Amino acid sequence: MKALGRQILVEFYDCDADVINDVTMVEEILLTATRAAKASIISHNFHKFSPHGISGTVVIAESHVAIHTWPEYNYAAVDIFTCGETIDPWIIQEYIKEHFFSKNVSSMEMKRGMFKVGPGEELLFKPKNSGAVKILN
Amino acid sequence: MKALGRQILVEFYDCDADVINDVTMVEEILLTATRAAKASIISHNFHKFSPHGISGTVVIAESHVAIHTWPEYNYAAVDIFTCGETIDPWIIQEYIKEHFFSKNVSSMEMKRGMFKVGPGEELLFKPKNSGAVKILN
Repeated sequence: MKALGRQILVEFYDCDADVINDVTMVEEILLTATRAAKASIISHNFHKFSPHGISGTVVIAESHVAIHTWPEYNYAAVDIFTCGETIDPWIIQEYIKEHFFSKNVSSMEMKRGMFKVGPGEELLFKPKNSGAVKILN
Repeated sequence: MKALGRQILVEFYDCDADVINDVTMVEEILLTATRAAKASIISHNFHKFSPHGISGTVVIAESHVAIHTWPEYNYAAVDIFTCGETIDPWIIQEYIKEHFFSKNVSSMEMKRGMFKVGPGEELLFKPKNSGAVKILN
């Protein structure tokens, strides 16, 4: 069995509440983390809730990064979904951890899209953007 | 321990390739599924890759729904992340299954943001939008 994608579900506990309640900072941290992993950014949307909490998504050519923050619990949930072999999702996790000042991180890696392949065969990953969508980076 | 959120990771195998390669249909199916579960839609972005494959995210007041499709494998990966008790993520899954004509679905439910609470205590969920963001529905 081989997988089309991998997904890291990250629990960032004990974060700096001021950072994870600042929509401009959260967006910048996620975009910079995503660029550090050499992902190709296609779109991004971040929203601040009242009185607190941020939700955001970054669609990348290689899948997506999503975040929800609960500053009142110093907690942020982040999903890092990648396909292909060019992106290292752990670079994204480490950058976010450092910039959220998270003192307690728990991660789980999942395989997505499992298929049987013959000996020596590989799954063909979604072709990296070939002009159909605009890369923002 | 109680959780701030729940997340359903869904593998839709044996889908109709024409449906999951049509960005307009995929977007409409996800938005309708999300509305059927009475979620509040804040933003949505869908992109078609060349020569095939779609990625998209729907940010909802209650968290998000994300999709990546591989029509060449008749496969779609969907994440349904919700918080609070008002949304039933399985309604979203069932609607998508039916409209993708998926004959083989595999789901895993994860708890996100686990915290110890005292007897009788509850976690306070992210307040449903209180005017800070515009609901599109």
